[in-house]
Amino acid sequence: MAALDLIIFGASGDLSARKLFPALFQLERLNLLGDDLRIAAVARTQQSIDEFSPTLRDKMSSYMGKDSPSDDEWTSFTSRFSYLSVNFSEPDQYSKLREWLDDDRISLFYFATPPSLFAPICEHLSNTNCLAGDCRIVVEKPIGEDLQSSINVNETLAEYFDETSIYRIDHYLGKETVQNLLALRFANSFINSQWDNTCIDHIQITVGEMIGIEGRWSYYDKVGQLRDMVQNHLMQLMCLVAMEPPNSLRADSIRDEKVKIVRALRRIDEQSVSEKVVRGQYVNGWIRGTAVPGYLDEAGSEMDESDTETFIAIKAHIDNWRWSGVPFYLRTGKRLHEKVTEIVIQYKNLPHNIFGEGANIPNKLVIRLQPNEGIELSMVAKKQSLKERMSLQSHLLDLDFREGSDLERIPDAYERLFLDAIQGDQSLFVGREEIEESWRWCDQLIEACKHQNVPALPYHAGSWGPAKAEVLIEKDFRSWHA
Amino acid sequence: MAALDLIIFGASGDLSARKLFPALFQLERLNLLGDDLRIAAVARTQQSIDEFSPTLRDKMSSYMGKDSPSDDEWTSFTSRFSYLSVNFSEPDQYSKLREWLDDDRISLFYFATPPSLFAPICEHLSNTNCLAGDCRIVVEKPIGEDLQSSINVNETLAEYFDETSIYRIDHYLGKETVQNLLALRFANSFINSQWDNTCIDHIQITVGEMIGIEGRWSYYDKVGQLRDMVQNHLMQLMCLVAMEPPNSLRADSIRDEKVKIVRALRRIDEQSVSEKVVRGQYVNGWIRGTAVPGYLDEAGSEMDESDTETFIAIKAHIDNWRWSGVPFYLRTGKRLHEKVTEIVIQYKNLPHNIFGEGANIPNKLVIRLQPNEGIELSMVAKKQSLKERMSLQSHLLDLDFREGSDLERIPDAYERLFLDAIQGDQSLFVGREEIEESWRWCDQLIEACKHQNVPALPYHAGSWGPAKAEVLIEKDFRSWHA
Repeated sequence: MAALDLIIFGASGDLSARKLFPALFQLERLNLLGDDLRIAAVARTQQSIDEFSPTLRDKMSSYMGKDSPSDDEWTSFTSRFSYLSVNFSEPDQYSKLREWLDDDRISLFYFATPPSLFAPICEHLSNTNCLAGDCRIVVEKPIGEDLQSSINVNETLAEYFDETSIYRIDHYLGKETVQNLLALRFANSFINSQWDNTCIDHIQITVGEMIGIEGRWSYYDKVGQLRDMVQNHLMQLMCLVAMEPPNSLRADSIRDEKVKIVRALRRIDEQSVSEKVVRGQYVNGWIRGTAVPGYLDEAGSEMDESDTETFIAIKAHIDNWRWSGVPFYLRTGKRLHEKVTEIVIQYKNLPHNIFGEGANIPNKLVIRLQPNEGIELSMVAKKQSLKERMSLQSHLLDLDFREGSDLERIPDAYERLFLDAIQGDQSLFVGREEIEESWRWCDQLIEACKHQNVPALPYHAGSWGPAKAEVLIEKDFRSWHA
Repeated sequence: MAALDLIIFGASGDLSARKLFPALFQLERLNLLGDDLRIAAVARTQQSIDEFSPTLRDKMSSYMGKDSPSDDEWTSFTSRFSYLSVNFSEPDQYSKLREWLDDDRISLFYFATPPSLFAPICEHLSNTNCLAGDCRIVVEKPIGEDLQSSINVNETLAEYFDETSIYRIDHYLGKETVQNLLALRFANSFINSQWDNTCIDHIQITVGEMIGIEGRWSYYDKVGQLRDMVQNHLMQLMCLVAMEPPNSLRADSIRDEKVKIVRALRRIDEQSVSEKVVRGQYVNGWIRGTAVPGYLDEAGSEMDESDTETFIAIKAHIDNWRWSGVPFYLRTGKRLHEKVTEIVIQYKNLPHNIFGEGANIPNKLVIRLQPNEGIELSMVAKKQSLKERMSLQSHLLDLDFREGSDLERIPDAYERLFLDAIQGDQSLFVGREEIEESWRWCDQLIEACKHQNVPALPYHAGSWGPAKAEVLIEKDFRSWHA
């Protein structure tokens, strides 16, 4: 593997201090960065590395707590660092970067910047000859806010980088449990052989957030929860759960299967949208004993009314052989009762129950990404008893095996993703086609909502969304897991 | 439920002190015997209850250890007791029993006697009018030593008792884990949906004993391991593993399904016997560091040579829709390396392995009856690691859920079986048809062995039987679990 340099644009931003540098530091601590990897922190502020470094350390430490770097570790970590002050919109200033780069090494550009800067940065990098060597680029969501704008972003990136050099992050994919889901599905014939509509009744994906809009009201009000969470995170999780077994673990194999799922997603049109979509917007309420304001009263709110959804529940169908007749219930919202991300595989009822009432407890597989990453299977066994002859009870089996781990903690998603980008493995990054197909589906859903005036129903902060979201699933004689 | 009396023939024998009375005592301790159940201990010795009782308590305590009865418990337990001295072959002496019996109550006769006494005891009971009331009978194996003699025993019993009143014990069926196997199979759609030849590669049933012939040489030498263990215990376990889902948990439903399995067992004839059967006889060797004699040198041995097998391994097939192409490998022997009774369900290999070498570890379900009762599933999960990207490892999941139990210990099989016989539930007892069909199959196998001179190959005590038993399975590219 060629030597590699990491160039972080937006190095003094919040994401950098909260996620990127801590992840890099953990890799350093585990001796996984390699000896000669260099890091260029690029940001606008005019300052020296000696000014940048202690500030970064302070910010990182406030997030990392007991995992914070010791003095020795910090010295060793920052010996890789350069700080380059670049005003991203000033082409002249890229010459500093050009000087720093070495075309015999791989340059891995990490754009921790607003998407509006992707195009100018790429252009200036190109014009100043910064892309002469072997280059890769890592970008964060959002990739557009609808199909057309995502095509624009992707076209821009494609002008300068080959698709095999573009690493689009969806940090959900870096979670340990998501990777374990792949092992569970494709390394256990026992699981794999019944991962279909003959055995599975339905699937739920819930991404509940307790936070509200957090000071980004004017941005969020143009976007809403569907674009903010469904188009990317929920769609990615659904793809990994639903995809056919890939030919290999290579990125192209996995992407081929994921995009097939998005393409097979039944379009939600004007005829079906009222039956299949519930939108909501939180009003004031209580979260863990604290009164919180409604969406329209949040700091930064500029309007007296808004139809933006802060909650959405969708009954989706995948029109392929495996999933015919198996609904996927998706829901996500701000200011919900719990912070939880989980996928629930609900197996079918027993065809015939010989154990009497109370014994027909269908098996359920719960894949939890947060708060506590893990995979659990509920199974039924005989209660050890003489008195009750064949009394059954349900048990939770932990399928998330920490034993044998060489890590004491669950690695953060960014650690996995950084390491993969450094090693050139794209399999946990999102391909262009998936994103655009996903936008195509979301755009149509949004259009249908508009045409049919599907309202954003009020729900109290701290609840599980509008009551109609319960009806969405209960009318099918099912219920939400949480 | 009518009041019930328990009449134990052979009450001063070894089985009574080791299993029957301890089981009854445990039920008493759990308050499960009911207030007015009476117990008549019937044996030949002329003695009073005051002589019988302390002797029994001493013997029981030597088996029960810390679970032994306290003084108070013993007083309360024996308040149910009568002792009747009866010479079983003297019809006159049954009048004592007739006096004791009450035809308004159910009489549950337990024959803890050699089978040769079944007929005379039944006859005398009948002639002395002891069977005038509502009667049940419990008998222990062996029920015959071939098809014809088992028919004779069953015919004798049938003269006096209806099949619905005959409780044939195979104590393996009373094990907690065997009942849990039923829950596992029929209360989990997740398990049930892949219990067939599409998902399962093969099944193993091993009953390994460390003991030798234990002073019953002249009996055993006429019988051998096939009749002693396969015809009853292994056959029953195979039936429970292989049977179709019964319509209900009623005894007749379960028996219907079990007998279908025995009938579907492919006959092992002269053409196939050399390929499918390995017989063995132990010679001297070491068991856990102690030198032990060979079969022909055991105490009680009367001959210089014998062709009786003390080990047998069989590759069996069940010719039905579910199990077509799934071999059942059975093996059992005396003086083997370990005392173990287990059923191993070996799932198929992954059809396609995307995780690289070492990752194709087929799932396996192990149902262990002894030494430690339990059910375990081996599954594959991702090793939590950053260094090794998709390194997998196999884990054992414990499917035997002790939590929520109202018992601190695993109940002995006899406790379950006594309680069921008292409550009139035959589902864990063996039906006549199963026994006779099983003998039909075993008789043909024995005949085939004789005609083809399948020899009892020598194996060292403390080994896993003759090397040819390994070949039996290895030639199919499989191997024994233990």
